[in-house]
Amino acid sequence: MATDNTSTAASGYVQPEVDVRALTEVLDGEYAEIRDLVRTNLVTYASVLEEADELGIDAFRERVRELVVEMAATGQTGMGFPGKYGGGDDIGASIAAFETLAFGDLSVLVKVGVQFGLFGGAILHLGTERHHDAHLPDLITGKLMGCFAMTEAGHGSNVQALGTVARYDAAAQEFVVTTHGDQARKDYIGNAARHAELAVVFAQLEVGGKSEGVHAFVVPIRVGGEAAPGVRIEDDGRKMGLNGVDNGRIWFDGVRVPREALLNRFADVTAEGVYESPIENPDRRFFTMLGTLVQGRVSVGGAGVNAAKVALAIATKYALRRRQFEAAPDTEEQLLLDYGLHQRRLLPLIARTYALHFAQDVVRTQLHEVFSGTEDDAQARRRLESRAAGTKALATWHATRVVQECREACGGAGYLSVNRFAALKSDSDIFTTFEGDNHVLMQLVAKGLLTHYAGEFEDLDQLGMVRYVTGLAVETVIERTSAHKLLERVRDLRPGGGEWDQEAGLLDSEYQLTMLRYREEHMLAGVARRLKRGIDQKRNPGVVFSQVQDHVIAVAHAHVERLVLEAFVDRVRALPESGNKVALGLLCDLFALSTIEADRAWFMEHGRLTVQRSKAISREVNDLCRKVRPLAAGLVDAWGIPPEMLRAPDLVGRPEDGAARR
Amino acid sequence: MATDNTSTAASGYVQPEVDVRALTEVLDGEYAEIRDLVRTNLVTYASVLEEADELGIDAFRERVRELVVEMAATGQTGMGFPGKYGGGDDIGASIAAFETLAFGDLSVLVKVGVQFGLFGGAILHLGTERHHDAHLPDLITGKLMGCFAMTEAGHGSNVQALGTVARYDAAAQEFVVTTHGDQARKDYIGNAARHAELAVVFAQLEVGGKSEGVHAFVVPIRVGGEAAPGVRIEDDGRKMGLNGVDNGRIWFDGVRVPREALLNRFADVTAEGVYESPIENPDRRFFTMLGTLVQGRVSVGGAGVNAAKVALAIATKYALRRRQFEAAPDTEEQLLLDYGLHQRRLLPLIARTYALHFAQDVVRTQLHEVFSGTEDDAQARRRLESRAAGTKALATWHATRVVQECREACGGAGYLSVNRFAALKSDSDIFTTFEGDNHVLMQLVAKGLLTHYAGEFEDLDQLGMVRYVTGLAVETVIERTSAHKLLERVRDLRPGGGEWDQEAGLLDSEYQLTMLRYREEHMLAGVARRLKRGIDQKRNPGVVFSQVQDHVIAVAHAHVERLVLEAFVDRVRALPESGNKVALGLLCDLFALSTIEADRAWFMEHGRLTVQRSKAISREVNDLCRKVRPLAAGLVDAWGIPPEMLRAPDLVGRPEDGAARR
Repeated sequence: MATDNTSTAASGYVQPEVDVRALTEVLDGEYAEIRDLVRTNLVTYASVLEEADELGIDAFRERVRELVVEMAATGQTGMGFPGKYGGGDDIGASIAAFETLAFGDLSVLVKVGVQFGLFGGAILHLGTERHHDAHLPDLITGKLMGCFAMTEAGHGSNVQALGTVARYDAAAQEFVVTTHGDQARKDYIGNAARHAELAVVFAQLEVGGKSEGVHAFVVPIRVGGEAAPGVRIEDDGRKMGLNGVDNGRIWFDGVRVPREALLNRFADVTAEGVYESPIENPDRRFFTMLGTLVQGRVSVGGAGVNAAKVALAIATKYALRRRQFEAAPDTEEQLLLDYGLHQRRLLPLIARTYALHFAQDVVRTQLHEVFSGTEDDAQARRRLESRAAGTKALATWHATRVVQECREACGGAGYLSVNRFAALKSDSDIFTTFEGDNHVLMQLVAKGLLTHYAGEFEDLDQLGMVRYVTGLAVETVIERTSAHKLLERVRDLRPGGGEWDQEAGLLDSEYQLTMLRYREEHMLAGVARRLKRGIDQKRNPGVVFSQVQDHVIAVAHAHVERLVLEAFVDRVRALPESGNKVALGLLCDLFALSTIEADRAWFMEHGRLTVQRSKAISREVNDLCRKVRPLAAGLVDAWGIPPEMLRAPDLVGRPEDGAARR
Repeated sequence: MATDNTSTAASGYVQPEVDVRALTEVLDGEYAEIRDLVRTNLVTYASVLEEADELGIDAFRERVRELVVEMAATGQTGMGFPGKYGGGDDIGASIAAFETLAFGDLSVLVKVGVQFGLFGGAILHLGTERHHDAHLPDLITGKLMGCFAMTEAGHGSNVQALGTVARYDAAAQEFVVTTHGDQARKDYIGNAARHAELAVVFAQLEVGGKSEGVHAFVVPIRVGGEAAPGVRIEDDGRKMGLNGVDNGRIWFDGVRVPREALLNRFADVTAEGVYESPIENPDRRFFTMLGTLVQGRVSVGGAGVNAAKVALAIATKYALRRRQFEAAPDTEEQLLLDYGLHQRRLLPLIARTYALHFAQDVVRTQLHEVFSGTEDDAQARRRLESRAAGTKALATWHATRVVQECREACGGAGYLSVNRFAALKSDSDIFTTFEGDNHVLMQLVAKGLLTHYAGEFEDLDQLGMVRYVTGLAVETVIERTSAHKLLERVRDLRPGGGEWDQEAGLLDSEYQLTMLRYREEHMLAGVARRLKRGIDQKRNPGVVFSQVQDHVIAVAHAHVERLVLEAFVDRVRALPESGNKVALGLLCDLFALSTIEADRAWFMEHGRLTVQRSKAISREVNDLCRKVRPLAAGLVDAWGIPPEMLRAPDLVGRPEDGAARR
């Protein structure tokens, strides 16, 4: 197949070389130091990868706890807490550490996330000084283990409908926490089955007979290793993966905690039983509380990207060693990565992994700025929440897809537990669900877009509109004129009028960005129109929403992919001229064009791609794969995964043989 | 969203009702009796689903062996063997039994497959009376356990390049079996680590210093529980799943077996050391031997379909119980399956599962006919092999996709081992790889199409053409004229000339079939043209093939999907008028249109879909989802999965509560 990429040919394309060390520096960015600390710790505790296979569930849980405490002692896990309690005062570094930890055993990762991210994060962000003083020092060292008891059997995604109740007893100045009905049991709670002494419990607050919505309380659930009085705990037992984390169920039967147990940063109850909050609107209060937990989503998204890297590094190295079938009689068998299909299977995934890495850099930076107070206003928080939700969803879906593709690309050896895919696959499977089901998160993203689109930034819920699914809010007052205006704006996006897509070079990142922007804006206008039509016709809002739901998800997807491409393009542009810049440019093109290719039907349906252009994009993707092929080893080595973490002796050799070494 | 399906509206559409019992009869077909026997056995041994979680690996392996032997005693597993040895003389029934067994624990399934399908099948089909008399009676009862030692560490897909050697020692009248180099060790061999006494070993036969290619030998590998002299066995250890099957590695160090150990149906060595075979061409001889093992692929394909059914039954029942988010304030929360997105996620998968079920019926029937000798000629065998390969690939990819989607659709509960997804996912993961890597199988399918297309049915390999990947053969003499003729034929496919696709109803199955036929023929002509061009230009065949490889896979995919749709359409047409016929008609439309929708970019690129038509198809798919929604419970119940096999108490309740009952 001759290349049709005349523009590249004309530009005198020279195959770049990857400077692995320099590329690692680009990827590690400002957090190189903490990432290297984590790499060192991962190597120190590399035996946990074997232990995950070899130990029974009880022993492995204890081992993981031990390891988390030992890692905590190195300062790795406490970066996000205030220095005065023993933390590192650097939330960005805490996320970077967590991301890097995802190169290793994922039970360790998730235990760290539960203890320091969820439990510690709730104490830090929902509590006030009394809670900080009481709990932060011990939880940062891991001496005090806790859990985050939000999800219930009956309600996962719909947190506002939780069934656990915390009634204020003014006479005793205590809250009485009760599980109402079995569906209100807390479930899937990490650290609950074995290690947690405290739980941050989310419950409906009742004061003076009035329900004030969901609030968080610190409740002791275990004393001296036994369940506290009134608390019943059950083990969730074996899971598909992450068996080093002790997930469990909790029931509360009139458990009394003092008034001070309420995490009272955003609302409090006076001794006399008066409910007070600086945030008047109950929905906004609720979402403000939930919003402080955004770091969990940012963390999981980054972990998804890095888990994908491990799978891709193994599969790529294998494809550079493994030969199968000769091209002609009496010749050596051919390397897997020299097969066009194998390139198509792995290389666009490497490109997308790089893209998501840089997108994760952006969301981590936003998180750092908001939580460090350098840029913390309502708008910045909303932007962060939306971006965190979308990046988490894309990154974790990507991880699931990558791990599966890479396992298959490694054949039967990929199925043996001694090689890492078994653990990677079963451990990472739940990433698409926890910290927010991905589909629900995408609806959150869409809600943000629609809200913004309606031109009403705040309090849409009061205006009598469809109020649906995680508070997905669409203003009845979305005007046709406003939709019309948007379409005008979309038209303006086209450089050079109607023929723009025929003239721009496929490898022009402005062209690629414009395509993704157009898709997003056009889809958004379409969803808004459909919702408005349903509302105008006074149809059942559930039916209206149900019928437009796939478009809602699609627009969120389009939005996040556009952000991801922007992050990648920005990063490449900012690099000094070098082989690495050229290499990342190829990857960026490969990501952009394979993304457009995957949705080329939509672009054709909406007049943004001709048939010829669409076919040209597929040829260009193939051509880019062939150009990236010689760079593959360097591109996966630059991720800086310790060779010990590529535990796949049958696939990449053993680290001591040097085969898996960078 | 108003329906745009005017043709349906005009035809006075009446929502059908599903008669579950009658539909089960349609699905079970002529093998209802054996399927019911397996269902009974599955319920009898239902505790194995718990035991898979609870027992250690050693105990679970023993338990699975025990169970396989007990099931064998019911006659369930021996249906494919001759009656005179204790079998059932009915190969179709043996496949149906295997398919049904896939509702249960998959370690049991795979152990049965290894013992009776691979080991027993090799003895039966590659051996002659002496082997049958010696081994069949005991292997049918499970008293004699054996393994199928084909795959080596260095060669899985490329069986012709195996490194194990069996040299004939004429003086001793023995074969000497030797593992040459560690990459030639047999690996991933089921039954090898623990239970097998005999192995059918595939090795390069050397007679009088001449290599005669790969042949199969019966080699004792274990005596009294210990490895036989000269045999070294290692345990593959824990795997991602299927831990009830004892996979292992085997090395042979000059192991001597008598001359009669050669499975000599297709070739023999005389006492004096003369090699004899009724099949002259060595490649054809090799593929003839391999071809007798086609039942393994037919079995795994059917198992993939039924594993997918289990996942879909659980997820569908859950979506009919689980409520989350209210559509409007103060209303009940909405069932998951009333969400448009949830319908989109599950219902096309149900449709495709039905489609693959009926496609599996066809390939099972072909297998039965070929192996029962009612229709056994070279052409029938080739057709069967191609169809078995393609159906296996599509069915097992489908299973992987379905299990993943269903797990995600069941949220966190889907991640607990007590609910079946953990086992289903990890156990079925390898289906895409074993019995032939799916991508390699698709190349086999494409090879068959190209061979046929070239108009040269036999012995293409002798004519000096590109000979590549699993013997993918493309004739250099593919003439442009022949490609041209094909395109003419493609044009003739279009009823009503250039406007055909604008006039035919989307719900006309002739339209749907024509679309899939056109795609296949057009792709095939394109691949042939590209290969011919490369050959004409005398380019490196490896490079030519590599660059066209994604098209090769695509044409195979298009071919098999067309066969699947034909099978579905044929089955629906043959049914008497009934609610079930209408319901299956909806599913068939949903399968056809969601298949076209998934590849609508290709159809637009090739002038077979206009933009308007493409959008109409997406609307129609949504509309069909809404029509199938009320039938969902009946459609999954009709699969007749014993409720005990839907082991997911958190998702569908416990069988004793009646919740999971049909």
